[in-house]
Amino acid sequence: RVNGDRLWDSLMEMAKIGPGIAGGNNRQTLTDADAQGRSLFKKWCDDAGLTMGVDRMGTMFATRPGTDPDALPIYVGSHLDTQPTGGKYDGVLGVLAALEVVRTMNDLGIKTKHPIVVTNWTNEEGARFAPAMLASGVFAGVHSLDFAYNRRDPEGNLFGDELKRIGWVGDEEVGARKMHAYFEYHIEQGPILEAEEKQIGVVTHCQGLWWLEFTLTGKEAHTGSTPMNLRVNAGLAMARILEMVQDVAMGEQPGAVGGVGQVFFSPNSRNVLPGKVVFTVDIRSPDKEKLDRMRAKIEAKAPEITDALGVGCSIEAIGHFEPITFDPKLVTSVRDAAERLGYSHMNIISGAGHDACWAAKVAPATMVMCPCVGGLSHNEAEEISKEWAMAGADVLFHAVVETAEI
Amino acid sequence: RVNGDRLWDSLMEMAKIGPGIAGGNNRQTLTDADAQGRSLFKKWCDDAGLTMGVDRMGTMFATRPGTDPDALPIYVGSHLDTQPTGGKYDGVLGVLAALEVVRTMNDLGIKTKHPIVVTNWTNEEGARFAPAMLASGVFAGVHSLDFAYNRRDPEGNLFGDELKRIGWVGDEEVGARKMHAYFEYHIEQGPILEAEEKQIGVVTHCQGLWWLEFTLTGKEAHTGSTPMNLRVNAGLAMARILEMVQDVAMGEQPGAVGGVGQVFFSPNSRNVLPGKVVFTVDIRSPDKEKLDRMRAKIEAKAPEITDALGVGCSIEAIGHFEPITFDPKLVTSVRDAAERLGYSHMNIISGAGHDACWAAKVAPATMVMCPCVGGLSHNEAEEISKEWAMAGADVLFHAVVETAEI
Ligand SMILES: NC(=O)NCCC(=O)O
Ligand SMILES: NC(=O)NCCC(=O)O
Repeated sequence: RVNGDRLWDSLMEMAKIGPGIAGGNNRQTLTDADAQGRSLFKKWCDDAGLTMGVDRMGTMFATRPGTDPDALPIYVGSHLDTQPTGGKYDGVLGVLAALEVVRTMNDLGIKTKHPIVVTNWTNEEGARFAPAMLASGVFAGVHSLDFAYNRRDPEGNLFGDELKRIGWVGDEEVGARKMHAYFEYHIEQGPILEAEEKQIGVVTHCQGLWWLEFTLTGKEAHTGSTPMNLRVNAGLAMARILEMVQDVAMGEQPGAVGGVGQVFFSPNSRNVLPGKVVFTVDIRSPDKEKLDRMRAKIEAKAPEITDALGVGCSIEAIGHFEPITFDPKLVTSVRDAAERLGYSHMNIISGAGHDACWAAKVAPATMVMCPCVGGLSHNEAEEISKEWAMAGADVLFHAVVETAEI
Repeated sequence: RVNGDRLWDSLMEMAKIGPGIAGGNNRQTLTDADAQGRSLFKKWCDDAGLTMGVDRMGTMFATRPGTDPDALPIYVGSHLDTQPTGGKYDGVLGVLAALEVVRTMNDLGIKTKHPIVVTNWTNEEGARFAPAMLASGVFAGVHSLDFAYNRRDPEGNLFGDELKRIGWVGDEEVGARKMHAYFEYHIEQGPILEAEEKQIGVVTHCQGLWWLEFTLTGKEAHTGSTPMNLRVNAGLAMARILEMVQDVAMGEQPGAVGGVGQVFFSPNSRNVLPGKVVFTVDIRSPDKEKLDRMRAKIEAKAPEITDALGVGCSIEAIGHFEPITFDPKLVTSVRDAAERLGYSHMNIISGAGHDACWAAKVAPATMVMCPCVGGLSHNEAEEISKEWAMAGADVLFHAVVETAEI
């Protein structure tokens, strides 16, 4: 069993860096707070006797050697970056539980054939730089390094410049490492495990996603002196598209979601009809057909809405991953570990995207989940119990050790 | 007749300060650009032999003395501040045409019984600090000085602090000045004069306004892992309210408008359902009953929409003026001047709010309007011709001189 108190103390220590405004965290990727979090994590890795490697995306790989020089390593990790109003566990739990796995191995003097690499992927959240899971995407060959370096945050800063600024451009070629297996432990971020009163989610699949960025072009005009029939109202078009996205998602129930988290009005002045409205539609489903059908419906209906208002409409797919099926053998090792340890468990499909989705492209991969209170995540009020955190870490420990072969 | 070239040159000179990104201006109130604009205007007033007074709201009053020491002054002006993506004429034309009126009087050696005061009101636009027409509102006793000083811009800066920062806190008590009459010349900001091919709008009324600031409270949650039926979606509620406002305004046609220019999502991240959405509904009508009925309908229907989604809804009226009827005698002097000068003219109702609306509370007031291309305003592409600018300035000159008595 892992040391639950030590894991919890590390979580609370990390949460002091980049505090939020309501008990959570704002430690967005490539900010000064991210740099501070990385330093603390590096110190802990050094203390645990791990060797740190960093790739050109800033992803951190802390290696505990194996006994067989020819055996490929097992990667275990997640991300330390957060949403602007994020929780203390989303991502962080997975990185620090991976660290706890090697700390426990050290305590117990366990030697494994395969090396273990505790991993912190850069920019999983995609809040500051879209798309999400950027570094693991480059690692898996889905994006080029150049594409990643040229992502911009809302202030116009380049990813490449910001990575350099915080001093975490490593020298390793991205994706050069080969993996024997990849494990990621994460909070569910949804309500199912808590409602079903299960301690462990055995993650069999992850749903797929499209991010569709809309740019609507209206005519900037005075809200008072512009008659209703002369308006080219991009704001009204946005409202109708939001309602349409809701309809499309409801029409694909169960097993589909759709919504909008980000909207920019321009010039965003109370007495100016917007000349431009930019927003991103987020649609997801574990069923590829449903997912692509939703996208097709939205892309067909949006121009009908905007044309009727004389508004210009362009749509760019700025984020995408297909539904993932995790490696059956690793999934079984997670389920067996939960069973062996006496933790209640169930199969679950991840509603959120994870670095494991991209890792699954280049290695056998799977995930372990624990419940979170009220299914709440991407919210500073995100909460889990120490017992939940520990149960998942125990399962992770057992599955990893089994796969790494003593 | 006024000197149209001189007026136009001054307009182009002022437009160099606080340039926009598309040919217009960003000279928002109490910015460094505003301070620069004020300095240039002061220099021109000095050159014209005027005496500058400044009140505690930063409003600038440049006086040309009259011949009768007991005669109250005639105030002629508008505003030099702009929208973030504003035009070169909205407000500026009214201030610089007032200056051109006294420059022409100087040229012709005209002496008047009543002094003439060229006026630049602070923060007419209300873009940076709501509500609009803030300084004239304090002048007319509608707002307290304290209320005005405590307005905040979106970055949280206080109006009072920013006024001090740019160095334009005057020593005059706000509203202490008494007016014999108030004239304001402005571009129409709507499409009517151009469509009717009239050079001059004789402004008989101004429509009334409500600004209703909505704060919708949803539940911040993950866009991927939060099932549709568990969402408390403040963004969807906003979309439905925008559509409802459109319906309410369409139901009061003709003679009513309604729309939304400003929307803030929080935390505004692509994969987070918004916990908070703040936006301002702008409704207007020249008919007080229609105006108040629209407000009542919106305030009744909004909670039905939000309740159905479990979203919290609070509504604050952050801007208001009632429909205004301008002074019949001054309106006649404007119409007579247009007639005398041979300019085509028609009666018109102002669709936008103006400092003249608050001045009308404390003095006889009226306005002169000229057309603008395509009715476009609150847009950097706002345009007028030199001939249009000049015709209105001629009418202003004649009406002011008549009222000021030679
Ligand atoms: N786990 C998580 O929240 N990842 C961010 C990418 C996503 O939106 O699913
Ligand atoms: N003239 C003008 O645009 N004033 C700003 C106040 C309003 O929105 O009407």
